[in-house]
Parts: sequence; C-alpha cells; structure tokens
Amino acid sequence: MSSDSSEKMSALKGAAAPIYFGPFLVTPQVFYTTPLTYALVNLKPILPGHVLVSPRRVVPRVSDLTAAETSDLFLTVRRVGRMVERIHGASALNIAVQDGLNAGQSVPHVHCHIIPRKAADLDHRGGTDAIYDMLDGEEGDVGKVFREAGNSSSERAETRTRFPVVDDKDRKPRGPEDMKAEAEMLAREMEKEPVD
Amino acid sequence: MSSDSSEKMSALKGAAAPIYFGPFLVTPQVFYTTPLTYALVNLKPILPGHVLVSPRRVVPRVSDLTAAETSDLFLTVRRVGRMVERIHGASALNIAVQDGLNAGQSVPHVHCHIIPRKAADLDHRGGTDAIYDMLDGEEGDVGKVFREAGNSSSERAETRTRFPVVDDKDRKPRGPEDMKAEAEMLAREMEKEPVD
Repeated sequence: MSSDSSEKMSALKGAAAPIYFGPFLVTPQVFYTTPLTYALVNLKPILPGHVLVSPRRVVPRVSDLTAAETSDLFLTVRRVGRMVERIHGASALNIAVQDGLNAGQSVPHVHCHIIPRKAADLDHRGGTDAIYDMLDGEEGDVGKVFREAGNSSSERAETRTRFPVVDDKDRKPRGPEDMKAEAEMLAREMEKEPVD
Repeated sequence: MSSDSSEKMSALKGAAAPIYFGPFLVTPQVFYTTPLTYALVNLKPILPGHVLVSPRRVVPRVSDLTAAETSDLFLTVRRVGRMVERIHGASALNIAVQDGLNAGQSVPHVHCHIIPRKAADLDHRGGTDAIYDMLDGEEGDVGKVFREAGNSSSERAETRTRFPVVDDKDRKPRGPEDMKAEAEMLAREMEKEPVD
C-alpha cells in the first residue's frame, strides 16, 4: 500500500519506485529521473529555482559513485541547469557539491545544488557572493529543513538570527502541495529540453 | 618555438600542446590531462590542495559542453578529488562551478574548483562555511590572481582588507617554480590512482 500511495503522490507520470534522499522519502518532490539519477525540488529554496540532483543509489561521497553514475549525475545537472536557467530567466548557475561532512554536507547522500543566478539578484544580501553563506548556512541545510519540516517556526527563528530576513516569502518551508505543484511544472518543462 | 618552450615547461611527460585557461597559458601548472579535460594547480590556493579541472576547449558555460566533455570533466573531478583528498589527508571535498559571470565566474572558461577539507580546517576563519567566502572573495578570484601575477603586493593588500590574514604563507601568490614543482608531484600521484 505504501508503494501505491507514493506512486499516487509522484509528480512524474509512470514513476513507480519510491525515491529516497538519504533516509527521507521524497517521491512527490521529484521532477525528473533517469535510471541512475533524479532531480528534486527543495523544501526551502535559497533562491527561486534552487533544485538538487542526486544519484538514485544512496551513497555519501562522489568517490562512491560508479563511472556511469558520475557521468549520468552531471549530464543530468547540465540538463536540469539549462531548464531552471531558462524558466527563471537567469543568466548563470551556481553548481556545488558538499562532498562529505567536513565540506558542509548535511544529508549523507550525494547531492548537487543547482541555483539559477541573475545580475544583482543578491544585492540586497551583500552581492553575488552571498549565495555561499546562504548555501552553507541554515537556509541551505537541506537535512535540517527535512528534519524540521513539521516544526517550521523554530527553524525559521533560528534562521532569522543568522541571516537578515529580506524576502520572507521565499524563506518559508513550503507545504507538500506547493512542492508537488512545482515538481509537476518542472517535469513538464524538462520534457521541452532538447536531448543531446 | 613557443610550443617548444611550453613543452619544455610542462610538468607532464609527453604533453605536447600548450594548454590555455581562458586567455592564460597554464601549461606548467597542468598536472593531468585527458583528451578533453585537464587539471591544474592554483597560483593562490585557498586551502592546500585546491586545484581546478577544466575542459580543454575554452567555453564559458557548462551548457556549452558536449555530453562527452561533461562526462569526462566530472569523471576527472572524481579522480582528481580522490587524489588530493588522499595526499592531503582530507576527509571531504568542496566541489563547485561558478557557471557564468553572475554566479561569480572570473575567467570565462568552465572550471570546477576542488578543495580538500578536513575537520576544523577553517575554525580559525569562522568554521566550515568560511570556504565559500574565500572561494567567492578575492582569494578565490582565479582571474584576478592570473591578471595580477606580476603585481602581487597590491593584490595582497586588497585581499587583506577583505579577509583577516591568518595563515599568510598559504596566501602568497606562488612563483612559477613552486607551481611547477607541485604540478610534477601531483602528476606522479595521479599515476597511483586506480583506473575505474
């Protein structure tokens, strides 16, 4: 029954198996899959269009990936990056892997952040460079936001201590319906990306 | 004659063609090549072992890469990452691409930063997160350090304004002989990495 319900919740037509991000079931957040890789929306994107790409296999380090998994992961990053840049009218991307705990990794499952960027998008936060504070701070702690999805007010209070809240609407942990709606929209947009 | 002198300067046995990082000739800094990709040491690594991996073809965006170039670039990142982690006794890696000007890219040629990390390595700079300030600040501006290689004192003065100088010896722009020596050492270490 759980596989049936997770199938019903998927944003992807024909997605059968439940998909895990570390210990977390993320099937409704997934908008693109290949046999080895998937892409998912964030509970709390640090900028609009911030998404993650992960191997289907739950392993902590890039070094743990097979050559086929490594190629497929980054071909998917390239493909998903083109899509989010297009639909968000962006002109650049931050692409980053915190590969291991001591590099800031919060969920022990390889994941590549893709963040669409445009000119002056972070001027109110201190300029282009601010993305890394956000990525590595409370805002970018994808483990924390999953862990605390049911406890958003305390999480936001902590975040507020650390970062000035400028654009509050982008900072709220989103509900499952919001994430599923974005995942469905991105799934449709991925179908428009040329194959190469 | 210029190809002959760049060949003589290469740290790599049998490396024939001069290798460019954007407009900069970097042949002596290169420690690993594949037909599509190369890896080079930095003029000013922001932590020991900080290296770059680039496609041989000078293009600004990941999206400009062919599928073969994308696969080869990140297979090389995985392979070089294993090596620098091993020889620096590290436990994690920061892997980052500033993909386009508005993402902080300083040289319009795709390059992936690989930075070995270990526990508490940046406690004196404010913790794990400090790497991103360093990457996106003056220290990580690989274009600036190339541009100003002949003018290191003013470059360092600017850097000092922005970041507290804690470990000065790691911050000096290095001479060509230092870089070539590191490139030769890394070239030997790459030969020890198993192929997979």
